[in-house]
Amino acid sequence: MGLMKRVGIRIGFGAAAAGFALLVMTSTAWAQEPDQEIADLVAAIDTAWLLIAAFLVFLMQAGFAMLEAGFVRSKNVANILMKNILDVSAGALAFWAVGWGLAYGFSGDATNGFVGTGHFFLVGFDDWASWIFQFAFAATAATIVSGAMAERTAFRAYLFYSVFITAIIYPVVVHWAWDGNGWLSAFASNPIGTNGYLDFAGSGVVHMVGGFAGLMGAIIVGPRIGKYGKDGSINPIPGHSISLAALGVFILWFGWYGFNPGSTLGLTGGFAALAAKVAVNTTLAAGASAVGCAFLSRTRVHNFDIGLTLNGALGGLVAITAPCAVVDPWAAVVIGFIAAPIVILGTEGLDRLKIDDPVGAVAVHGFNGVWGVLAVGLFASKSGIAEAYVASDSYGLLLGGGAEQLGIQALGVAAIAGWTMVTSGIMFLIIKYTIGLRVSPEEEERGLDLGEHGVEAYPDFQPSPSMGGIANMLAVTQPATAAVPATSTSAARGPE
Amino acid sequence: MGLMKRVGIRIGFGAAAAGFALLVMTSTAWAQEPDQEIADLVAAIDTAWLLIAAFLVFLMQAGFAMLEAGFVRSKNVANILMKNILDVSAGALAFWAVGWGLAYGFSGDATNGFVGTGHFFLVGFDDWASWIFQFAFAATAATIVSGAMAERTAFRAYLFYSVFITAIIYPVVVHWAWDGNGWLSAFASNPIGTNGYLDFAGSGVVHMVGGFAGLMGAIIVGPRIGKYGKDGSINPIPGHSISLAALGVFILWFGWYGFNPGSTLGLTGGFAALAAKVAVNTTLAAGASAVGCAFLSRTRVHNFDIGLTLNGALGGLVAITAPCAVVDPWAAVVIGFIAAPIVILGTEGLDRLKIDDPVGAVAVHGFNGVWGVLAVGLFASKSGIAEAYVASDSYGLLLGGGAEQLGIQALGVAAIAGWTMVTSGIMFLIIKYTIGLRVSPEEEERGLDLGEHGVEAYPDFQPSPSMGGIANMLAVTQPATAAVPATSTSAARGPE
Amino acid sequence: MGLMKRVGIRIGFGAAAAGFALLVMTSTAWAQEPDQEIADLVAAIDTAWLLIAAFLVFLMQAGFAMLEAGFVRSKNVANILMKNILDVSAGALAFWAVGWGLAYGFSGDATNGFVGTGHFFLVGFDDWASWIFQFAFAATAATIVSGAMAERTAFRAYLFYSVFITAIIYPVVVHWAWDGNGWLSAFASNPIGTNGYLDFAGSGVVHMVGGFAGLMGAIIVGPRIGKYGKDGSINPIPGHSISLAALGVFILWFGWYGFNPGSTLGLTGGFAALAAKVAVNTTLAAGASAVGCAFLSRTRVHNFDIGLTLNGALGGLVAITAPCAVVDPWAAVVIGFIAAPIVILGTEGLDRLKIDDPVGAVAVHGFNGVWGVLAVGLFASKSGIAEAYVASDSYGLLLGGGAEQLGIQALGVAAIAGWTMVTSGIMFLIIKYTIGLRVSPEEEERGLDLGEHGVEAYPDFQPSPSMGGIANMLAVTQPATAAVPATSTSAARGPE
Repeated sequence: MGLMKRVGIRIGFGAAAAGFALLVMTSTAWAQEPDQEIADLVAAIDTAWLLIAAFLVFLMQAGFAMLEAGFVRSKNVANILMKNILDVSAGALAFWAVGWGLAYGFSGDATNGFVGTGHFFLVGFDDWASWIFQFAFAATAATIVSGAMAERTAFRAYLFYSVFITAIIYPVVVHWAWDGNGWLSAFASNPIGTNGYLDFAGSGVVHMVGGFAGLMGAIIVGPRIGKYGKDGSINPIPGHSISLAALGVFILWFGWYGFNPGSTLGLTGGFAALAAKVAVNTTLAAGASAVGCAFLSRTRVHNFDIGLTLNGALGGLVAITAPCAVVDPWAAVVIGFIAAPIVILGTEGLDRLKIDDPVGAVAVHGFNGVWGVLAVGLFASKSGIAEAYVASDSYGLLLGGGAEQLGIQALGVAAIAGWTMVTSGIMFLIIKYTIGLRVSPEEEERGLDLGEHGVEAYPDFQPSPSMGGIANMLAVTQPATAAVPATSTSAARGPE
Repeated sequence: MGLMKRVGIRIGFGAAAAGFALLVMTSTAWAQEPDQEIADLVAAIDTAWLLIAAFLVFLMQAGFAMLEAGFVRSKNVANILMKNILDVSAGALAFWAVGWGLAYGFSGDATNGFVGTGHFFLVGFDDWASWIFQFAFAATAATIVSGAMAERTAFRAYLFYSVFITAIIYPVVVHWAWDGNGWLSAFASNPIGTNGYLDFAGSGVVHMVGGFAGLMGAIIVGPRIGKYGKDGSINPIPGHSISLAALGVFILWFGWYGFNPGSTLGLTGGFAALAAKVAVNTTLAAGASAVGCAFLSRTRVHNFDIGLTLNGALGGLVAITAPCAVVDPWAAVVIGFIAAPIVILGTEGLDRLKIDDPVGAVAVHGFNGVWGVLAVGLFASKSGIAEAYVASDSYGLLLGGGAEQLGIQALGVAAIAGWTMVTSGIMFLIIKYTIGLRVSPEEEERGLDLGEHGVEAYPDFQPSPSMGGIANMLAVTQPATAAVPATSTSAARGPE
Repeated sequence: MGLMKRVGIRIGFGAAAAGFALLVMTSTAWAQEPDQEIADLVAAIDTAWLLIAAFLVFLMQAGFAMLEAGFVRSKNVANILMKNILDVSAGALAFWAVGWGLAYGFSGDATNGFVGTGHFFLVGFDDWASWIFQFAFAATAATIVSGAMAERTAFRAYLFYSVFITAIIYPVVVHWAWDGNGWLSAFASNPIGTNGYLDFAGSGVVHMVGGFAGLMGAIIVGPRIGKYGKDGSINPIPGHSISLAALGVFILWFGWYGFNPGSTLGLTGGFAALAAKVAVNTTLAAGASAVGCAFLSRTRVHNFDIGLTLNGALGGLVAITAPCAVVDPWAAVVIGFIAAPIVILGTEGLDRLKIDDPVGAVAVHGFNGVWGVLAVGLFASKSGIAEAYVASDSYGLLLGGGAEQLGIQALGVAAIAGWTMVTSGIMFLIIKYTIGLRVSPEEEERGLDLGEHGVEAYPDFQPSPSMGGIANMLAVTQPATAAVPATSTSAARGPE
């Protein structure tokens, strides 16, 4: 690439003596060979797609941050946001140093089905577009966990586990499922079974890892104070802002259009039509699940519950993430409708087991991740597999394609859930018995914002006496009756 | 598309024994014929543009949600957000099942100028990129209505009318104006007049439908309690969060770059330059209208009013939506400046008629939708029409192109406004006299969040005694003096 | 481009008697010549990239708005948001009328190294994609200033200086550095030194201009009441919403993927790989700086401070903006880590000088803008410069490329800082001594929202007695003890 081209592009803006050169002309001037030109165009459009998709997936960090912030109490908002900004930041360094290398890296011929072996710190590597896309996925897996463990997990513990998931636990699963050498991979030269494990955009690889690590974390850190009464009661602890939670879901849904359609990894070679079908399926599953949760919530809690409906949309998105490329739109609708009860009953079931997940991440990402993986084995069409992978006679059980694929998908579920729960369980236990996993009860009552970060998220507004940070802090240190005069309380808030 | 390509793309990440294959190489390896390669590239870039534009338009749902949430009182926030999440969700199912079929569907040769006749449930259909783009537009039309009817409309009524608009009312207008067989369509083989009705991105098709359906809804559901005094006074009811409203406008403006430039539907064939011009015009009209409203608000309410300025930006965006492809930038500035008084005087006029539109949707989308459609007949340039449609001697009246186009645009306004007002009027009346359109006065006072959904949007914060949800709830059920002690009230808030 | 193509594209949706025409077919039908086809594809992909990048940069306006709103007190939220919506709106008109012309415009052969000379009001101009991209950059430079001067600057003064920066101060710097005739420009036929001044996406051109104009503004308008005690104390004035600030940072980071990778201005001609590398470097620098600030804040203020961490991410983004195209990823990490102390010590240093910058804009954009420009001279690799500009033997000092480039970068810093501080200083002084730069002390205490705009941003919520708008308003007009009864205060908020 010579001087003329480089100058030409930028000079397009300037006032070259020869006049104003259009981009079209300057850009094509350098090209000599049609084949080379076409290869350059293919690289341009495929890279553009991968980068833009990566950027949309990155924006999901904003979605998770708003969702998780909205679903926690105001006294823990700065803490959860700090976790969100740092998991993507520290995660970037971790995925640069180690994560990519364990997922896709290799060194010479040395490789294996279990883990990548090279390109640490991206030495000798230059597939930058793939790195940024995969990094955005890794950050998604890691950030899911913070929601399930919100409102009581110590910040130092968080920093450790977040980096460990991004650097180690998640990349290994990626290697299994998506690397050309992975033992589960559909892209292996001799895949397991006929097609290998099919997980187009990561219901299992990304969401199950985040969800099941969150499950282990929620179990090991224990429930928030006051969530489960000694009499067996389950006490709702409403989040502080429905607005932020709803904003988060809209942003996440938007970002999912990078997550799923972007997983074609390019648009040339006929993938454009596939990416478009994936976008349609993603939309329909999210819509069906949100509608399903709205109506189902009415039968379970006598209301159109907005928290469950928001999580419903997310559950449908998680569920369609694996099958989005291989099912027809009608099946996306069915998959979405089935995602709805999984969100609601999953959330209820965890509560019954006294596993406290403040934002519903386990049911949304973990359980619906399982459902999405299995749905491939049930609903994948013969033409869908041919379009997204390689033509095969093994496809969805319900479409007459036999049980083999469903079996492989179940194996994938078992492997991913097993790996994630064992490794993250060990990790959380080590943290618990070394640096400590949980804040003190005093700090939890007072709020993690003041305790861990010395700030209030909303210093200009009066908290409700019954809920807010300062009031709770006072309640810990002095008699509640003195701290909150009855007249003030009843006047401003009344009984609930 | 054979095995090698599919594997190649994904293996690009992996550690194939033969080394690391760049995307460029794997992707081009399969292609045999230059013509086929170029057709593939054209499909890739045009599809990419349509998909990305669709995603940006989808994000407008987040913008509308934040705008509408910000402009209502805190006691109705969860309700309006629930409506926003469900209109896109139920709308996806409705546009899949029915909407597309009535807009663009056909069955064999059976078609007509009034309504589409096939492809229901997308059977026999595979133009996925077009579906997702058109769906995002349909969701926009539907969500406009919820703002105009906010803070008093029953949720069950909302569910019904929202689906009906997405499935029936809106798609018929699309068929008229944008389908190749529509009686108004510029794409018909024998369009009405010389050019047919010109509405590039839908000032009429989308925004007038949303705005005029909202107008009928606002009239039929009636004003909020307390909005209009018996003495003829008009009482401002400020929204609960300027921050969310402003965020909504920024997101909407961003999403409009999908809405308008994306309406080229592709970038090849010379459309790239047109899309760029559309982006410039969109920016200038929005800017001019916001500036206009800021200064005009100063003369009307003695302040730089932020609510009107935010709606001013939106009004400019709506107005430029029809003419964005056929006018020069100077005309975009003029169109934007004229949009400003339409927003402000339109809002004032509705108040004088006691038509209560809490978010200003009717003036922004309905009235400026009309202005945008007519502006085509005034400002469309000869070269602009040639670039975006077909070269013609009929163009903008003010540019010497005669009055014919203005006449056709006026016919389009009459047809769209008439259809929308009649069908939505009948629909709202049927709802009113069957399942009911409005919540009870008690529920309205208390807030729809508690009544319809059993939640508070912001449980951690003390509402202002004069405005908030709980305080109002108490005011309904017990004497206000007992509920809100005078000292507490005056201390925290004082007179307004 | 004939009739058939235009109709074909739109008819793709309709029910043409001949059946359903795929986009691929209609779009390619018109093309005759492979060369012409390839030129069209190049234009399409390069324009798509530039437009999408411009849209992402535009969304940074939402990010700045949320960041600045979150970092000010609730009584000044509507004011800062009004400034944000109007600087992009008035800025669009200013950059249309004057700004572009001074940056890149020319008239015939008349041009010079200091300032553009034509294309005012875009007369005789049609490079629309470049205009929208450059406009989005201009709006970024202008909006930075409002943060540094927040909470006490009069609105009329703001309108004037904002337009002046977008129309005059910023475009001149663009002409110097990026126009093909600019005296500093790397794209000049005889650039200064070997390579000219290298500032790929504008650490200097955009962020230094915004940051140093903000510095002059903050100095001349003076600190907020109460910020600096007479005893030399520095009083923190916490912003009203950590949530909005965090949202702003996530949106800004996302938008930066348009800012930096988009500055390739196209993707063909091999630029796709460069854009991807830029995205990776952008990510790593942001992550490193955020992590650095989180840990450094712990040593400075005994906490993981979220405000500093959020600004840390931004500081890293600013610092990598100039060198993103010419450094390797390891250097991006180093640059990011060094950005962290610049944010924290810069903020502390300004406070020691009693220069009050409520949002930290000067340290983030001004000081890290300087750092980014200089980092090119230290870390630019030989291959990096060849890839992004023209192969050269002058590159980063620390990589053995000599000191020349560092010298040129320092010259660029001096020129940009000097121009910006002198011109903006004169401008602010003229404003101060004519229409006035600052609101009255009464209005400042009461809040600019009520004083300038007659609204409250959050009318439904009770402000904290110690901080909020109404309480402060009362405190000005009547004795505080009467306004805020002790019992109510202590109950709801307690001591801080």
